[in-house]
Amino acid sequence: MNRNKCFSVIGGDARSIEAANALFNSGYAVKVFAFNDKCSFKQGVIRSKTIQDATSDADYLLLPIPYSTNGESVNAPLYDNSLLLSTLFQHIKGFQTVFAGRIDESFHSDMNTKNISHYDYAKREEFAIYNAIPTAEGAIEIAFRECPFTLNGSRCLILGHGRIAKILRHMLTGLGAGVAVSARKISDLAWASSFGADAFSIYDLSKHIENYQIIFNTIPYCILTKDILAKAKQKPLIIDLASRPGGVDFEAAGQMNLKAIHALSLPGKVAPDTAGRIICDTVLNIISETEVKE
Amino acid sequence: MNRNKCFSVIGGDARSIEAANALFNSGYAVKVFAFNDKCSFKQGVIRSKTIQDATSDADYLLLPIPYSTNGESVNAPLYDNSLLLSTLFQHIKGFQTVFAGRIDESFHSDMNTKNISHYDYAKREEFAIYNAIPTAEGAIEIAFRECPFTLNGSRCLILGHGRIAKILRHMLTGLGAGVAVSARKISDLAWASSFGADAFSIYDLSKHIENYQIIFNTIPYCILTKDILAKAKQKPLIIDLASRPGGVDFEAAGQMNLKAIHALSLPGKVAPDTAGRIICDTVLNIISETEVKE
Amino acid sequence: MNRNKCFSVIGGDARSIEAANALFNSGYAVKVFAFNDKCSFKQGVIRSKTIQDATSDADYLLLPIPYSTNGESVNAPLYDNSLLLSTLFQHIKGFQTVFAGRIDESFHSDMNTKNISHYDYAKREEFAIYNAIPTAEGAIEIAFRECPFTLNGSRCLILGHGRIAKILRHMLTGLGAGVAVSARKISDLAWASSFGADAFSIYDLSKHIENYQIIFNTIPYCILTKDILAKAKQKPLIIDLASRPGGVDFEAAGQMNLKAIHALSLPGKVAPDTAGRIICDTVLNIISETEVKE
Amino acid sequence: MNRNKCFSVIGGDARSIEAANALFNSGYAVKVFAFNDKCSFKQGVIRSKTIQDATSDADYLLLPIPYSTNGESVNAPLYDNSLLLSTLFQHIKGFQTVFAGRIDESFHSDMNTKNISHYDYAKREEFAIYNAIPTAEGAIEIAFRECPFTLNGSRCLILGHGRIAKILRHMLTGLGAGVAVSARKISDLAWASSFGADAFSIYDLSKHIENYQIIFNTIPYCILTKDILAKAKQKPLIIDLASRPGGVDFEAAGQMNLKAIHALSLPGKVAPDTAGRIICDTVLNIISETEVKE
Repeated sequence: MNRNKCFSVIGGDARSIEAANALFNSGYAVKVFAFNDKCSFKQGVIRSKTIQDATSDADYLLLPIPYSTNGESVNAPLYDNSLLLSTLFQHIKGFQTVFAGRIDESFHSDMNTKNISHYDYAKREEFAIYNAIPTAEGAIEIAFRECPFTLNGSRCLILGHGRIAKILRHMLTGLGAGVAVSARKISDLAWASSFGADAFSIYDLSKHIENYQIIFNTIPYCILTKDILAKAKQKPLIIDLASRPGGVDFEAAGQMNLKAIHALSLPGKVAPDTAGRIICDTVLNIISETEVKE
Repeated sequence: MNRNKCFSVIGGDARSIEAANALFNSGYAVKVFAFNDKCSFKQGVIRSKTIQDATSDADYLLLPIPYSTNGESVNAPLYDNSLLLSTLFQHIKGFQTVFAGRIDESFHSDMNTKNISHYDYAKREEFAIYNAIPTAEGAIEIAFRECPFTLNGSRCLILGHGRIAKILRHMLTGLGAGVAVSARKISDLAWASSFGADAFSIYDLSKHIENYQIIFNTIPYCILTKDILAKAKQKPLIIDLASRPGGVDFEAAGQMNLKAIHALSLPGKVAPDTAGRIICDTVLNIISETEVKE
Repeated sequence: MNRNKCFSVIGGDARSIEAANALFNSGYAVKVFAFNDKCSFKQGVIRSKTIQDATSDADYLLLPIPYSTNGESVNAPLYDNSLLLSTLFQHIKGFQTVFAGRIDESFHSDMNTKNISHYDYAKREEFAIYNAIPTAEGAIEIAFRECPFTLNGSRCLILGHGRIAKILRHMLTGLGAGVAVSARKISDLAWASSFGADAFSIYDLSKHIENYQIIFNTIPYCILTKDILAKAKQKPLIIDLASRPGGVDFEAAGQMNLKAIHALSLPGKVAPDTAGRIICDTVLNIISETEVKE
Repeated sequence: MNRNKCFSVIGGDARSIEAANALFNSGYAVKVFAFNDKCSFKQGVIRSKTIQDATSDADYLLLPIPYSTNGESVNAPLYDNSLLLSTLFQHIKGFQTVFAGRIDESFHSDMNTKNISHYDYAKREEFAIYNAIPTAEGAIEIAFRECPFTLNGSRCLILGHGRIAKILRHMLTGLGAGVAVSARKISDLAWASSFGADAFSIYDLSKHIENYQIIFNTIPYCILTKDILAKAKQKPLIIDLASRPGGVDFEAAGQMNLKAIHALSLPGKVAPDTAGRIICDTVLNIISETEVKE
């Protein structure tokens, strides 16, 4: 292993630490910057003292997800100082390739101005698929914690049948829960029932909702309205996994004394190591595809 | 439903509340005693004000598990007063049947003196089998909480292949973990591998332990000794489910900076409703068997 | 149940018989035509003696899959006579809706000329999904029959990750086989590994093929070429599920003494009842969607 | 690998061939006798021409299951001649260990007379457990072949909850069938329902039997009597896996036009290679246990 290609991992939380370690395990030389002394890296990973050093001879730069939370500095919650985006951008060179999470218009135009190759790993299909696993586990952990009954033998309803829903359906079934899926498309219902779940049209939700003890929502618009919630006779636990503003009328749920939890960004919270490895794997996929093309 | 047979549920925690509710749902008249006002019972369950009333016309008495924690009074953590065993025993009549958890010699002889039918539901085989489910879920919940990686794709080792181990093996497999079982008996290894787990003899534990990230112990003697723990190179999380004193040299684990959690009495903690229903089901099984015999 | 809508089921094999029975069970009046006396229908299904009677007061006509095998007459293998398409078409009325399998250009234009609503149920997504189940079971039945070893514990490779592959992966895993998926898209590999299968790029097939005892192909072009087959050291059983001409160089396989089975049209062969019910369900889905739109 | 211990495999069917090959793969020298030229062994396995040669320097002798079918000669269906037991016994030496299947009283006394260590591998617990897998697969293959519907989504009933039943329950569930278990012991019902099956007492069989499309019997006495069969309204397929005389009133089943198949000795028929490897594994377990003891 010659480690003749170098990654510079700049900023981020525990996921970035694990991504750096995983890149090192994959055979790359790895430098890290914008992490404090408490952060623990594999032996062999080099801690750069300055942004100059961090960027000087790197082939690839890895920025966190999101790359910035305020549009001004790099997202670096484990750094005791702050690193301005403008400072970072000055040090990126034309031959380097930048990987970052949730790239926005301003980032794009900055990179394009300098003609720098850049990729948003968070937009990759496999990134989303792999992250469905820690998301589903995080949702199940919440259900374990909140429910006074076992998931085995419980009646769970999953709204939607996208990536997270498919993994949730599989894991809940594996735990012995009774699982139903409600979705709009007939083909999604066909898939769910082919894998052993009950399945009914989302248009019939108000008829069926009374049968369930736990509801996992993955649909990103307000599907659990006041009217629908009023039919939920068993006072189900509601775990909303849809991105903001979610799929639940939380105010109505509160008034009805229904516990509804909006669980966001679970992978980084419940399984930062796995989430970091997913970043590593996705970035390596991008490299492998672009190098093949070249 | 004529509710012409009456259960008196006396003392206990959330499990006894749910057992009372489940007995009511099964068609029995139910009286409860030694619960404070915050305890919530199904409509129709009668709250007795006195032990006289609670026992007067009951056919069956249901005591908690354990029936007493001090040998003097009924185990009644949700009761603001205390109910002496001697007081309770005065009120039990010869035609009544008493169900209690973890009956000891003193209880037996008290009951036998008065010629009262009594059963320890905690000794029933199906009680242990059903409780393996909340125990396994509790163990998985701990693993979810403690691990920075997903159980899906992780390498888990289960020591022993009794009831809890079998359910754990099944659930962890269902979550997509890689599962190995180590046990003494060749037939247990044959079973584990027949259900898709890796399997190796407990005598080879020191050779294999380095491969695992999480170890669930169910063997009730010190199997994870200092010497064995020293071989656990991946610093696994250890979850010990064996009853006191457990199967781990906790002191050695602490010195090696290994996290080892002794998780006891999980059903009542993580899923009191399910645990209560299991009490109800087991008691009804006993009644159904003895009535068939009569 | 007033049975005030009438289906006329005309021609077909055992699937059409079961489709007729299933439509009857769903509450429709059902007439059948072009079946001989040995065909057994549910009590209440009416056997029309003439095509006039079969079509006179029907709201819906159900033709088989494929609706014709020769372009001249209705596909009616259980009919002792023959029914010309031209004769049938004369009797279809403008208010009727026709459902048929594998509708071609000539059928379309005939229907359009007469302004008759018509649908190809075989083109529906859920039809394909549901039929993946009998296809997968048929493939597994072949593997059971041909292999001198158990599928449990065997090493199976699935080429492709479309509908049939997903169901096969799930069922083989459920039987305890070791399952690998090879496909082109990274996202497909991510899905397969998320559900516990090994996964590798189809571009690496020649490197990995020697590890497998059974290969299920679902990719509809020649993926198992002479060169690739030469690497299959374990002499695997090959079951090709891709439609003609399939994905195997059968001649090369023969020369290498590799058993390669091209298994086509499995649903109708291995589970005609299920296949018939799928036709019924799909047709009812079409009706329900179009009626909602109206 | 020095192959300094030698196995002599004498007689038997395809299972014995595979057992010989598996023993060779495990590092033993292997001689075979009483197989014709069409039998194919691994390169390195030595074909003895005479019983003298076969037994001369062997440490272990492996006889088939059953070791004899007529009490006079070795069970050797792939041998063009016949080998008398008396001839074989003359050649066995005191230091050799003999492994055979279904050892009877006469074999025992012959061996004991000569003070020869001998073991019946068919009596080992793990032998029975491992053979439950090919038995279950054979039963499922029959169901696939006989049923015009898919097992996925079908309603299957398993009678009994011993080894074969447990594996069948697991595999059928894995294929997506709806599975119920009926047994006598409450603990068996608790196990079955813990793993997701419906469960009801065998005493209630007549009440429930009408719900099932396929019945797998594993109970070795006549449980499916004429009276019970009369309640089986769905005309289920019956697959009887219990050893002779089985658990079905086959005459009554025939009169009621119920298809009932008595499927015996499935491992050797459907998966001889697996069955042979099980013999090898079991014999090695016996050796490993006795050598440890020595």
